[in-house]
Amino acid sequence: MTVEPIRILVNGEVSNSVATTDRGLLYGDGLFETIACVDNKPRLWEAHMQRLQAGCEHLGIGRIDTDLLREDCMGLLEGVPRGVLKVIITRGTGGRGYRSPDNVTPTRIVQLHDWPDYPELTHTEGISAIICKTRLGHNPSLAGIKHLNRLEQVMARREWNDEVIREGLMLDNTGHVIEGTMSNVFLVSKGGLLTPDLTQCGVAGIMRAHVMGLAAQENMATDVRAITVAELQQADEVFVCNSLIGIWPVRRVDDKTFEKGPLTTRLQARLARPNGDAIT
Amino acid sequence: MTVEPIRILVNGEVSNSVATTDRGLLYGDGLFETIACVDNKPRLWEAHMQRLQAGCEHLGIGRIDTDLLREDCMGLLEGVPRGVLKVIITRGTGGRGYRSPDNVTPTRIVQLHDWPDYPELTHTEGISAIICKTRLGHNPSLAGIKHLNRLEQVMARREWNDEVIREGLMLDNTGHVIEGTMSNVFLVSKGGLLTPDLTQCGVAGIMRAHVMGLAAQENMATDVRAITVAELQQADEVFVCNSLIGIWPVRRVDDKTFEKGPLTTRLQARLARPNGDAIT
Repeated sequence: MTVEPIRILVNGEVSNSVATTDRGLLYGDGLFETIACVDNKPRLWEAHMQRLQAGCEHLGIGRIDTDLLREDCMGLLEGVPRGVLKVIITRGTGGRGYRSPDNVTPTRIVQLHDWPDYPELTHTEGISAIICKTRLGHNPSLAGIKHLNRLEQVMARREWNDEVIREGLMLDNTGHVIEGTMSNVFLVSKGGLLTPDLTQCGVAGIMRAHVMGLAAQENMATDVRAITVAELQQADEVFVCNSLIGIWPVRRVDDKTFEKGPLTTRLQARLARPNGDAIT
Repeated sequence: MTVEPIRILVNGEVSNSVATTDRGLLYGDGLFETIACVDNKPRLWEAHMQRLQAGCEHLGIGRIDTDLLREDCMGLLEGVPRGVLKVIITRGTGGRGYRSPDNVTPTRIVQLHDWPDYPELTHTEGISAIICKTRLGHNPSLAGIKHLNRLEQVMARREWNDEVIREGLMLDNTGHVIEGTMSNVFLVSKGGLLTPDLTQCGVAGIMRAHVMGLAAQENMATDVRAITVAELQQADEVFVCNSLIGIWPVRRVDDKTFEKGPLTTRLQARLARPNGDAIT
Protein backbone atom coordinates (compact mmCIF):
# COMPACT_ATOMS: atom_id res chain seq x y z
CA MET A 1 0.00 0.00 0.00
CA THR A 2 1.16 3.47 -0.72
CA VAL A 3 0.91 6.20 1.85
CA GLU A 4 -2.37 7.56 0.51
CA PRO A 5 -5.16 5.55 -1.02
CA ILE A 6 -6.24 6.77 -4.44
CA ARG A 7 -9.97 6.11 -4.16
CA ILE A 8 -12.18 5.43 -1.16
CA LEU A 9 -15.81 4.43 -0.63
CA VAL A 10 -17.56 4.51 2.74
CA ASN A 11 -20.82 2.55 2.76
CA GLY A 12 -20.76 2.71 -1.03
CA GLU A 13 -20.36 6.49 -1.28
CA VAL A 14 -17.24 8.39 -2.30
CA SER A 15 -15.90 9.66 1.03
CA ASN A 16 -12.80 9.70 3.15
CA SER A 17 -14.30 9.98 6.58
CA VAL A 18 -15.96 8.02 9.33
CA ALA A 19 -17.66 9.30 12.49
CA THR A 20 -15.48 9.81 15.58
CA THR A 21 -18.06 7.59 17.27
CA ASP A 22 -17.35 4.66 14.95
CA ARG A 23 -16.44 1.66 17.07
CA GLY A 24 -13.64 0.84 14.66
CA LEU A 25 -11.90 3.98 15.89
CA LEU A 26 -13.01 3.79 19.54
CA TYR A 27 -12.10 0.15 20.18
CA GLY A 28 -10.67 -1.39 17.02
CA ASP A 29 -14.04 -3.12 16.88
CA GLY A 30 -13.87 -4.47 13.34
CA LEU A 31 -11.92 -6.40 10.73
CA PHE A 32 -9.99 -5.86 7.53
CA GLU A 33 -8.76 -7.57 4.39
CA THR A 34 -5.91 -6.58 2.10
CA ILE A 35 -6.54 -7.87 -1.40
CA ALA A 36 -4.17 -7.95 -4.37
CA CYS A 37 -5.82 -6.86 -7.64
CA VAL A 38 -4.48 -7.64 -11.09
CA ASP A 39 -6.16 -6.91 -14.43
CA ASN A 40 -9.13 -5.30 -12.66
CA LYS A 41 -9.67 -8.45 -10.65
CA PRO A 42 -9.29 -9.08 -6.93
CA ARG A 43 -7.24 -12.23 -6.33
CA LEU A 44 -8.51 -14.92 -4.00
CA TRP A 45 -11.72 -12.95 -3.57
CA GLU A 46 -13.79 -15.85 -2.27
CA ALA A 47 -11.20 -16.76 0.34
CA HIS A 48 -10.97 -13.13 1.52
CA MET A 49 -14.74 -12.87 1.76
CA GLN A 50 -15.02 -16.15 3.62
CA ARG A 51 -12.46 -15.04 6.20
CA LEU A 52 -14.13 -11.63 6.55
CA GLN A 53 -17.54 -13.23 6.97
CA ALA A 54 -16.21 -15.70 9.52
CA GLY A 55 -14.55 -12.86 11.43
CA CYS A 56 -17.74 -10.80 11.42
CA GLU A 57 -19.72 -13.72 12.76
CA HIS A 58 -17.10 -14.46 15.40
CA LEU A 59 -17.16 -10.86 16.66
CA GLY A 60 -20.95 -10.82 16.57
CA ILE A 61 -21.08 -8.20 13.82
CA GLY A 62 -23.26 -10.65 11.92
CA ARG A 63 -23.42 -11.50 8.25
CA ILE A 64 -22.34 -8.83 5.82
CA ASP A 65 -23.47 -8.38 2.24
CA THR A 66 -20.46 -9.46 0.20
CA ASP A 67 -22.31 -8.65 -3.03
CA LEU A 68 -22.33 -4.99 -1.99
CA LEU A 69 -18.64 -5.23 -1.15
CA ARG A 70 -17.93 -6.76 -4.55
CA GLU A 71 -19.82 -3.91 -6.23
CA ASP A 72 -17.76 -1.37 -4.28
CA CYS A 73 -14.53 -3.12 -5.16
CA MET A 74 -15.27 -3.66 -8.84
CA GLY A 75 -16.29 -0.01 -9.14
CA LEU A 76 -13.02 1.19 -7.66
CA LEU A 77 -10.98 -1.20 -9.80
CA GLU A 78 -12.38 -0.03 -13.14
CA GLY A 79 -9.44 0.79 -15.42
CA VAL A 80 -6.88 -0.17 -12.77
CA PRO A 81 -4.43 -2.77 -14.08
CA ARG A 82 -2.80 -3.39 -10.70
CA GLY A 83 -3.72 -2.20 -7.23
CA VAL A 84 -4.45 -3.11 -3.66
CA LEU A 85 -7.89 -3.09 -2.09
CA LYS A 86 -8.17 -2.60 1.63
CA VAL A 87 -11.60 -3.56 2.92
CA ILE A 88 -12.58 -2.57 6.46
CA ILE A 89 -15.76 -3.60 8.25
CA THR A 90 -16.46 -2.08 11.66
CA ARG A 91 -19.33 -2.90 14.00
CA GLY A 92 -20.68 0.61 13.30
CA THR A 93 -21.32 3.71 15.32
CA GLY A 94 -22.14 4.29 18.95
CA GLY A 95 -23.00 2.40 22.04
CA ARG A 96 -22.62 2.99 25.73
CA GLY A 97 -18.99 2.26 26.33
CA TYR A 98 -17.90 -1.22 25.31
CA ARG A 99 -21.47 -2.39 24.98
CA SER A 100 -22.67 -2.09 21.41
CA PRO A 101 -26.15 -0.85 20.53
CA ASP A 102 -28.70 -3.57 19.83
CA ASN A 103 -29.33 -2.43 16.29
CA VAL A 104 -26.19 -1.13 14.73
CA THR A 105 -25.30 -1.01 11.05
CA PRO A 106 -21.73 -2.05 10.24
CA THR A 107 -19.52 0.51 8.51
CA ARG A 108 -18.11 -0.65 5.16
CA ILE A 109 -14.94 1.00 3.92
CA VAL A 110 -13.09 0.15 0.71
CA GLN A 111 -9.81 1.86 -0.15
CA LEU A 112 -7.91 1.42 -3.39
CA HIS A 113 -4.15 1.82 -3.01
CA ASP A 114 -1.33 1.79 -5.56
CA TRP A 115 0.58 -1.45 -5.91
CA PRO A 116 3.47 -1.42 -3.42
CA ASP A 117 6.90 -0.71 -4.86
CA TYR A 118 8.78 -3.67 -3.42
CA PRO A 119 11.95 -4.28 -5.45
CA GLU A 120 11.82 -7.37 -7.68
CA LEU A 121 14.86 -8.70 -5.81
CA THR A 122 12.73 -9.30 -2.70
CA HIS A 123 10.97 -11.96 -4.72
CA THR A 124 13.84 -13.39 -6.73
CA GLU A 125 16.71 -13.20 -4.24
CA GLY A 126 14.85 -12.96 -0.96
CA ILE A 127 14.93 -10.72 2.06
CA SER A 128 16.57 -10.07 5.40
CA ALA A 129 14.45 -10.20 8.52
CA ILE A 130 14.91 -9.66 12.23
CA ILE A 131 13.27 -11.21 15.24
CA CYS A 132 11.25 -8.48 16.96
CA LYS A 133 11.39 -7.82 20.68
CA THR A 134 7.64 -7.04 20.75
CA ARG A 135 5.80 -10.26 21.54
CA LEU A 136 2.34 -11.41 20.52
CA GLY A 137 0.06 -11.94 23.50
CA HIS A 138 -1.97 -15.15 23.64
CA ASN A 139 -5.64 -14.63 23.07
CA PRO A 140 -7.38 -17.74 21.74
CA SER A 141 -10.70 -15.91 21.44
CA LEU A 142 -9.26 -13.48 18.90
CA ALA A 143 -6.43 -15.55 17.39
CA GLY A 144 -6.42 -16.09 13.65
CA ILE A 145 -8.82 -13.22 12.98
CA LYS A 146 -7.69 -10.17 10.99
CA HIS A 147 -9.23 -7.68 13.40
CA LEU A 148 -8.41 -4.01 13.85
CA ASN A 149 -6.48 -4.38 17.14
CA ARG A 150 -3.00 -4.18 15.64
CA LEU A 151 -0.88 -2.27 18.14
CA GLU A 152 1.42 -5.27 18.59
CA GLN A 153 2.27 -5.18 14.90
CA VAL A 154 2.62 -1.39 14.93
CA MET A 155 5.01 -1.58 17.88
CA ALA A 156 6.99 -4.41 16.28
CA ARG A 157 7.28 -2.48 12.99
CA ARG A 158 8.73 0.46 14.93
CA GLU A 159 11.73 -1.66 15.89
CA TRP A 160 13.65 -1.08 12.67
CA ASN A 161 14.13 1.63 10.07
CA ASP A 162 16.82 -0.05 7.99
CA GLU A 163 15.40 -0.45 4.45
CA VAL A 164 17.48 -3.62 4.04
CA ILE A 165 15.27 -5.32 6.63
CA ARG A 166 11.99 -6.23 4.93
CA GLU A 167 10.20 -8.06 7.70
CA GLY A 168 10.24 -8.64 11.44
CA LEU A 169 9.36 -12.06 12.80
CA MET A 170 7.28 -12.06 15.95
CA LEU A 171 7.36 -14.55 18.82
CA ASP A 172 4.66 -15.21 21.35
CA ASN A 173 5.12 -14.93 25.12
CA THR A 174 6.45 -18.48 25.28
CA GLY A 175 9.16 -17.69 22.72
CA HIS A 176 7.62 -19.57 19.82
CA VAL A 177 7.76 -18.17 16.30
CA ILE A 178 4.29 -17.05 15.19
CA GLU A 179 4.43 -14.82 12.10
CA GLY A 180 5.92 -11.75 10.47
CA THR A 181 4.50 -8.31 11.24
CA MET A 182 2.69 -8.37 7.88
CA SER A 183 3.15 -11.95 6.74
CA ASN A 184 2.97 -15.60 7.71
CA VAL A 185 6.12 -17.69 7.93
CA PHE A 186 6.95 -21.17 6.65
CA LEU A 187 10.00 -23.36 7.22
CA VAL A 188 11.27 -26.19 5.09
CA SER A 189 12.80 -28.85 7.29
CA LYS A 190 13.66 -32.47 6.43
CA GLY A 191 11.91 -32.06 3.10
CA GLY A 192 8.60 -30.99 4.66
CA LEU A 193 6.78 -27.73 5.21
CA LEU A 194 6.24 -26.34 8.69
CA THR A 195 4.21 -23.32 9.74
CA PRO A 196 3.26 -22.03 13.20
CA ASP A 197 0.04 -23.00 14.90
CA LEU A 198 -2.12 -19.87 15.21
CA THR A 199 -4.70 -20.98 17.76
CA GLN A 200 -3.23 -18.76 20.51
CA CYS A 201 -2.28 -15.67 18.51
CA GLY A 202 -1.42 -14.48 15.01
CA VAL A 203 -3.37 -13.86 11.83
CA ALA A 204 -4.36 -16.83 9.66
CA GLY A 205 -3.40 -15.33 6.32
CA ILE A 206 -5.26 -15.99 3.08
CA MET A 207 -1.94 -16.59 1.33
CA ARG A 208 -0.85 -18.94 4.12
CA ALA A 209 -3.88 -21.15 3.45
CA HIS A 210 -3.38 -20.79 -0.29
CA VAL A 211 0.29 -21.83 -0.05
CA MET A 212 -0.71 -24.87 2.00
CA GLY A 213 -3.22 -25.73 -0.70
CA LEU A 214 -0.63 -25.41 -3.44
CA ALA A 215 1.82 -27.46 -1.42
CA ALA A 216 -0.79 -30.18 -1.02
CA GLN A 217 -1.29 -30.21 -4.80
CA GLU A 218 2.46 -30.81 -5.05
CA ASN A 219 2.14 -33.66 -2.55
CA MET A 220 3.78 -31.64 0.21
CA ALA A 221 1.98 -31.82 3.53
CA THR A 222 2.33 -28.86 5.92
CA ASP A 223 2.93 -29.56 9.57
CA VAL A 224 1.12 -26.88 11.61
CA ARG A 225 2.48 -26.72 15.14
CA ALA A 226 4.44 -24.70 17.70
CA ILE A 227 7.88 -23.78 16.31
CA THR A 228 10.89 -22.73 18.36
CA VAL A 229 13.50 -20.15 17.36
CA ALA A 230 16.05 -23.00 17.32
CA GLU A 231 13.95 -24.83 14.74
CA LEU A 232 13.76 -21.67 12.68
CA GLN A 233 17.52 -21.30 12.83
CA GLN A 234 18.06 -24.92 11.81
CA ALA A 235 15.58 -24.83 8.92
CA ASP A 236 16.77 -25.65 5.41
CA GLU A 237 14.61 -22.92 3.89
CA VAL A 238 12.49 -20.11 5.28
CA PHE A 239 9.91 -18.00 3.48
CA VAL A 240 7.21 -15.49 4.33
CA CYS A 241 4.03 -14.86 2.40
CA ASN A 242 1.07 -12.58 2.18
CA SER A 243 -1.52 -11.61 -0.42
CA LEU A 244 0.60 -8.80 -1.87
CA ILE A 245 4.13 -10.15 -1.77
CA GLY A 246 3.21 -13.71 -2.66
CA ILE A 247 6.22 -15.67 -1.40
CA TRP A 248 9.48 -14.01 -0.34
CA PRO A 249 12.44 -16.27 0.41
CA VAL A 250 14.01 -15.31 3.75
CA ARG A 251 17.79 -15.30 3.37
CA ARG A 252 18.73 -13.91 6.75
CA VAL A 253 17.15 -13.74 10.20
CA ASP A 254 19.33 -11.63 12.47
CA ASP A 255 22.79 -13.25 12.08
CA LYS A 256 21.62 -16.55 10.65
CA THR A 257 21.64 -16.95 6.87
CA PHE A 258 19.61 -19.31 4.68
CA GLU A 259 19.84 -20.46 1.08
CA LYS A 260 16.96 -19.92 -1.29
CA GLY A 261 16.01 -23.54 -1.57
CA PRO A 262 14.24 -25.74 -4.08
CA LEU A 263 10.90 -26.04 -2.28
CA THR A 264 10.54 -22.27 -1.93
CA THR A 265 11.37 -21.88 -5.63
CA ARG A 266 8.88 -24.59 -6.55
CA LEU A 267 6.08 -22.96 -4.55
CA GLN A 268 6.90 -19.55 -6.02
CA ALA A 269 6.68 -21.04 -9.50
CA ARG A 270 3.42 -22.79 -8.62
CA LEU A 271 1.99 -19.52 -7.31
CA ALA A 272 2.94 -17.70 -10.50
CA ARG A 273 1.18 -20.18 -12.82
CA PRO A 274 -2.02 -18.90 -14.43
CA ASN A 275 -4.26 -20.96 -12.18
CA GLY A 276 -1.87 -21.19 -9.30
CA ASP A 277 -3.05 -17.97 -7.74
CA ALA A 278 -6.69 -18.79 -8.33
CA ILE A 279 -7.68 -15.44 -9.81
CA THR A 280 -11.43 -15.34 -9.62
CA MET B 1 -21.40 7.96 28.33
CA THR B 2 -24.63 8.25 26.45
CA VAL B 3 -25.05 6.70 23.08
CA GLU B 4 -24.30 9.90 21.18
CA PRO B 5 -21.84 12.57 22.27
CA ILE B 6 -23.35 16.03 22.45
CA ARG B 7 -20.35 18.03 21.24
CA ILE B 8 -17.20 16.98 19.44
CA LEU B 9 -13.96 18.68 18.43
CA VAL B 10 -11.42 17.14 16.07
CA ASN B 11 -8.05 18.90 16.19
CA GLY B 12 -9.78 21.82 17.85
CA GLU B 13 -12.47 22.23 15.19
CA VAL B 14 -16.15 21.33 15.50
CA SER B 15 -16.41 18.08 13.56
CA ASN B 16 -17.58 14.53 13.89
CA SER B 17 -15.29 12.82 11.43
CA VAL B 18 -11.82 11.44 10.98
CA ALA B 19 -10.14 10.19 7.81
CA THR B 20 -10.56 6.52 6.93
CA THR B 21 -6.76 6.52 6.78
CA ASP B 22 -6.41 7.52 10.42
CA ARG B 23 -4.26 4.95 12.17
CA GLY B 24 -6.64 5.00 15.12
CA LEU B 25 -9.20 3.35 12.86
CA LEU B 26 -6.79 1.18 10.85
CA TYR B 27 -4.88 -0.34 13.77
CA GLY B 28 -6.23 1.05 17.05
CA ASP B 29 -3.00 3.05 17.01
CA GLY B 30 -3.78 5.52 19.77
CA LEU B 31 -5.01 6.12 23.30
CA PHE B 32 -7.99 7.49 25.17
CA GLU B 33 -9.10 8.96 28.48
CA THR B 34 -12.58 9.11 29.97
CA ILE B 35 -12.87 12.09 32.32
CA ALA B 36 -15.66 12.93 34.76
CA CYS B 37 -16.61 16.61 34.68
CA VAL B 38 -18.50 18.39 37.44
CA ASP B 39 -19.28 22.12 37.68
CA ASN B 40 -17.55 22.76 34.35
CA LYS B 41 -14.39 21.14 35.66
CA PRO B 42 -12.67 17.93 34.62
CA ARG B 43 -11.83 15.81 37.66
CA LEU B 44 -8.33 14.45 38.16
CA TRP B 45 -7.22 16.33 35.04
CA GLU B 46 -3.51 16.23 35.82
CA ALA B 47 -3.58 12.49 36.44
CA HIS B 48 -5.44 11.87 33.18
CA MET B 49 -2.99 14.04 31.25
CA GLN B 50 0.01 12.37 32.84
CA ARG B 51 -1.26 8.93 31.88
CA LEU B 52 -2.12 10.08 28.35
CA GLN B 53 1.30 11.68 27.94
CA ALA B 54 3.03 8.56 29.27
CA GLY B 55 1.00 6.39 26.89
CA CYS B 56 1.85 8.61 23.92
CA GLU B 57 5.53 8.43 24.72
CA HIS B 58 5.37 4.68 25.22
CA LEU B 59 3.75 4.18 21.81
CA GLY B 60 6.19 6.59 20.18
CA ILE B 61 3.50 9.13 19.36
CA GLY B 62 5.63 11.67 21.20
CA ARG B 63 4.70 14.51 23.50
CA ILE B 64 1.31 16.06 22.98
CA ASP B 65 0.22 19.59 23.80
CA THR B 66 -1.97 19.20 26.86
CA ASP B 67 -2.63 22.96 26.93
CA LEU B 68 -4.41 22.60 23.59
CA LEU B 69 -6.36 19.66 24.97
CA ARG B 70 -7.33 21.68 28.04
CA GLU B 71 -8.55 24.49 25.77
CA ASP B 72 -10.64 22.01 23.78
CA CYS B 73 -12.10 20.50 26.93
CA MET B 74 -12.84 23.75 28.72
CA GLY B 75 -14.53 25.07 25.58
CA LEU B 76 -16.82 22.05 25.36
CA LEU B 77 -17.61 22.18 29.08
CA GLU B 78 -18.85 25.78 29.09
CA GLY B 79 -22.27 25.84 30.74
CA VAL B 80 -22.24 22.09 31.38
CA PRO B 81 -22.81 21.27 35.05
CA ARG B 82 -22.05 17.57 34.68
CA GLY B 83 -20.71 15.57 31.77
CA VAL B 84 -18.13 13.12 30.53
CA LEU B 85 -15.20 14.01 28.32
CA LYS B 86 -13.72 11.35 26.12
CA VAL B 87 -10.30 12.35 24.82
CA ILE B 88 -8.76 10.31 22.00
CA ILE B 89 -5.26 10.74 20.62
CA THR B 90 -4.26 8.72 17.56
CA ARG B 91 -0.87 8.56 15.91
CA GLY B 92 -2.41 10.36 12.93
CA THR B 93 -3.03 9.57 9.30
CA GLY B 94 -1.31 7.33 6.84
CA GLY B 95 1.76 5.22 6.53
CA ARG B 96 2.71 2.19 4.53
CA GLY B 97 1.01 -0.62 6.38
CA TYR B 98 2.00 -0.93 10.01
CA ARG B 99 4.95 1.40 9.54
CA SER B 100 4.03 4.94 10.46
CA PRO B 101 5.19 7.92 8.41
CA ASP B 102 8.26 9.71 9.77
CA ASN B 103 6.45 12.98 10.24
CA VAL B 104 2.90 12.43 11.27
CA THR B 105 0.66 14.76 13.25
CA PRO B 106 -1.41 13.06 15.95
CA THR B 107 -5.18 13.37 15.69
CA ARG B 108 -6.83 14.96 18.74
CA ILE B 109 -10.48 14.18 19.38
CA VAL B 110 -12.55 15.44 22.31
CA GLN B 111 -16.14 14.29 22.76
CA LEU B 112 -18.52 15.59 25.40
CA HIS B 113 -21.10 13.03 26.53
CA ASP B 114 -24.04 13.28 28.92
CA TRP B 115 -23.46 11.99 32.42
CA PRO B 116 -24.32 8.28 32.50
CA ASP B 117 -27.64 7.38 34.08
CA TYR B 118 -26.45 4.74 36.51
CA PRO B 119 -29.04 4.30 39.29
CA GLU B 120 -28.00 5.74 42.66
CA LEU B 121 -28.40 2.25 44.13
CA THR B 122 -25.30 1.06 42.26
CA HIS B 123 -23.36 3.39 44.50
CA THR B 124 -25.25 3.00 47.77
CA GLU B 125 -26.19 -0.66 47.69
CA GLY B 126 -23.71 -2.06 45.23
CA ILE B 127 -23.83 -4.18 42.12
CA SER B 128 -23.90 -7.71 40.78
CA ALA B 129 -21.08 -8.85 38.54
CA ILE B 130 -20.14 -11.94 36.61
CA ILE B 131 -16.81 -13.47 35.72
CA CYS B 132 -16.43 -13.25 31.95
CA LYS B 133 -15.33 -16.13 29.79
CA THR B 134 -13.30 -13.80 27.56
CA ARG B 135 -9.76 -13.67 28.91
CA LEU B 136 -7.19 -10.89 28.79
CA GLY B 137 -4.07 -11.88 26.86
CA HIS B 138 -0.69 -11.12 28.43
CA ASN B 139 1.18 -8.36 26.73
CA PRO B 140 3.64 -6.63 29.02
CA SER B 141 4.62 -4.12 26.30
CA LEU B 142 1.07 -2.73 26.20
CA ALA B 143 -0.16 -3.56 29.71
CA GLY B 144 -1.44 -0.73 31.86
CA ILE B 145 -1.91 1.64 28.90
CA LYS B 146 -5.39 2.86 27.93
CA HIS B 147 -4.87 2.23 24.22
CA LEU B 148 -7.48 1.81 21.51
CA ASN B 149 -7.11 -1.98 21.12
CA ARG B 150 -10.18 -2.92 23.13
CA LEU B 151 -11.69 -5.94 21.41
CA GLU B 152 -11.17 -8.08 24.50
CA GLN B 153 -13.38 -5.72 26.51
CA VAL B 154 -15.93 -5.50 23.68
CA MET B 155 -16.13 -9.29 23.50
CA ALA B 156 -16.40 -9.60 27.28
CA ARG B 157 -19.18 -6.98 27.41
CA ARG B 158 -21.11 -9.03 24.86
CA GLU B 159 -21.39 -11.89 27.34
CA TRP B 160 -24.39 -10.48 29.19
CA ASN B 161 -27.49 -8.40 28.48
CA ASP B 162 -29.14 -8.64 31.88
CA GLU B 163 -29.44 -5.07 33.20
CA VAL B 164 -29.06 -6.41 36.75
CA ILE B 165 -25.45 -7.28 35.95
CA ARG B 166 -23.44 -4.06 36.05
CA GLU B 167 -19.95 -5.35 35.42
CA GLY B 168 -18.00 -8.34 34.18
CA LEU B 169 -14.74 -9.27 35.84
CA MET B 170 -12.01 -10.46 33.51
CA LEU B 171 -9.32 -13.03 34.16
CA ASP B 172 -6.03 -13.43 32.36
CA ASN B 173 -4.89 -16.59 30.60
CA THR B 174 -3.53 -17.98 33.86
CA GLY B 175 -6.91 -17.56 35.56
CA HIS B 176 -5.98 -14.58 37.73
CA VAL B 177 -8.44 -11.77 38.32
CA ILE B 178 -7.30 -8.63 36.46
CA GLU B 179 -10.08 -6.05 36.20
CA GLY B 180 -13.64 -5.31 35.18
CA THR B 181 -14.49 -4.61 31.54
CA MET B 182 -14.68 -0.89 32.37
CA SER B 183 -13.29 -0.72 35.90
CA ASN B 184 -10.51 -1.81 38.21
CA VAL B 185 -11.21 -4.18 41.07
CA PHE B 186 -10.18 -4.13 44.73
CA LEU B 187 -10.59 -6.71 47.46
CA VAL B 188 -10.60 -6.18 51.19
CA SER B 189 -9.04 -9.16 52.91
CA LYS B 190 -7.75 -9.46 56.48
CA GLY B 191 -8.26 -5.74 56.95
CA GLY B 192 -6.06 -4.79 54.01
CA LEU B 193 -6.64 -3.70 50.41
CA LEU B 194 -5.65 -5.91 47.52
CA THR B 195 -5.72 -5.11 43.80
CA PRO B 196 -4.40 -7.05 40.82
CA ASP B 197 -0.94 -6.52 39.42
CA LEU B 198 -1.29 -5.05 35.90
CA THR B 199 2.17 -5.58 34.50
CA GLN B 200 1.02 -8.35 32.13
CA CYS B 201 -2.38 -7.00 31.06
CA GLY B 202 -5.15 -4.65 32.11
CA VAL B 203 -5.61 -0.90 32.27
CA ALA B 204 -4.06 1.04 35.14
CA GLY B 205 -7.05 3.23 35.92
CA ILE B 206 -6.80 6.81 37.14
CA MET B 207 -9.39 6.06 39.81
CA ARG B 208 -7.45 2.94 40.81
CA ALA B 209 -4.38 5.07 41.56
CA HIS B 210 -6.54 7.69 43.22
CA VAL B 211 -8.21 5.12 45.47
CA MET B 212 -4.81 3.76 46.46
CA GLY B 213 -3.76 7.31 47.31
CA LEU B 214 -6.86 7.90 49.43
CA ALA B 215 -6.35 4.56 51.14
CA ALA B 216 -2.76 5.52 51.96
CA GLN B 217 -4.03 8.77 53.51
CA GLU B 218 -6.24 6.58 55.68
CA ASN B 219 -3.22 4.48 56.60
CA MET B 220 -4.38 1.57 54.48
CA ALA B 221 -1.65 0.06 52.32
CA THR B 222 -2.69 -1.65 49.09
CA ASP B 223 -1.09 -4.94 48.20
CA VAL B 224 -0.67 -5.08 44.41
CA ARG B 225 -0.15 -8.66 43.26
CA ALA B 226 -1.61 -11.62 41.34
CA ILE B 227 -5.05 -12.53 42.71
CA THR B 228 -6.82 -15.85 42.25
CA VAL B 229 -10.55 -16.37 41.82
CA ALA B 230 -10.52 -18.24 45.14
CA GLU B 231 -9.09 -15.17 46.87
CA LEU B 232 -11.80 -13.06 45.25
CA GLN B 233 -14.45 -15.45 46.51
CA GLN B 234 -13.01 -15.42 50.03
CA ALA B 235 -12.66 -11.63 50.21
CA ASP B 236 -14.45 -9.73 53.00
CA GLU B 237 -15.35 -6.89 50.64
CA VAL B 238 -15.07 -6.33 46.90
CA PHE B 239 -15.43 -3.09 44.99
CA VAL B 240 -14.83 -1.78 41.48
CA CYS B 241 -13.93 1.75 40.52
CA ASN B 242 -13.47 4.05 37.58
CA SER B 243 -13.46 7.77 36.92
CA LEU B 244 -17.22 7.94 36.30
CA ILE B 245 -18.68 5.52 38.81
CA GLY B 246 -16.26 6.35 41.60
CA ILE B 247 -16.52 3.28 43.84
CA TRP B 248 -19.24 0.64 43.45
CA PRO B 249 -19.49 -2.04 46.13
CA VAL B 250 -19.69 -5.49 44.54
CA ARG B 251 -22.36 -7.52 46.31
CA ARG B 252 -22.39 -10.55 44.07
CA VAL B 253 -19.98 -12.25 41.68
CA ASP B 254 -21.75 -15.10 39.92
CA ASP B 255 -23.20 -17.14 42.83
CA LYS B 256 -21.01 -15.71 45.56
CA THR B 257 -22.40 -12.82 47.63
CA PHE B 258 -20.55 -10.16 49.60
CA GLU B 259 -21.51 -7.63 52.25
CA LYS B 260 -20.96 -3.95 51.68
CA GLY B 261 -18.18 -3.59 54.21
CA PRO B 262 -16.74 -0.79 56.33
CA LEU B 263 -13.59 -0.18 54.30
CA THR B 264 -15.53 0.23 51.06
CA THR B 265 -17.90 2.64 52.82
CA ARG B 266 -14.97 4.56 54.29
CA LEU B 267 -13.28 4.93 50.91
CA GLN B 268 -16.55 5.99 49.28
CA ALA B 269 -16.97 8.66 51.95
CA ARG B 270 -13.37 9.77 51.52
CA LEU B 271 -13.87 10.03 47.75
CA ALA B 272 -16.97 12.15 48.19
CA ARG B 273 -15.29 14.76 50.44
CA PRO B 274 -14.65 18.13 48.80
CA ASN B 275 -10.94 17.53 48.41
CA GLY B 276 -11.15 13.79 48.29
CA ASP B 277 -11.69 13.66 44.58
CA ALA B 278 -9.01 16.25 43.93
CA ILE B 279 -11.01 18.43 41.58
CA THR B 280 -8.49 20.62 39.82
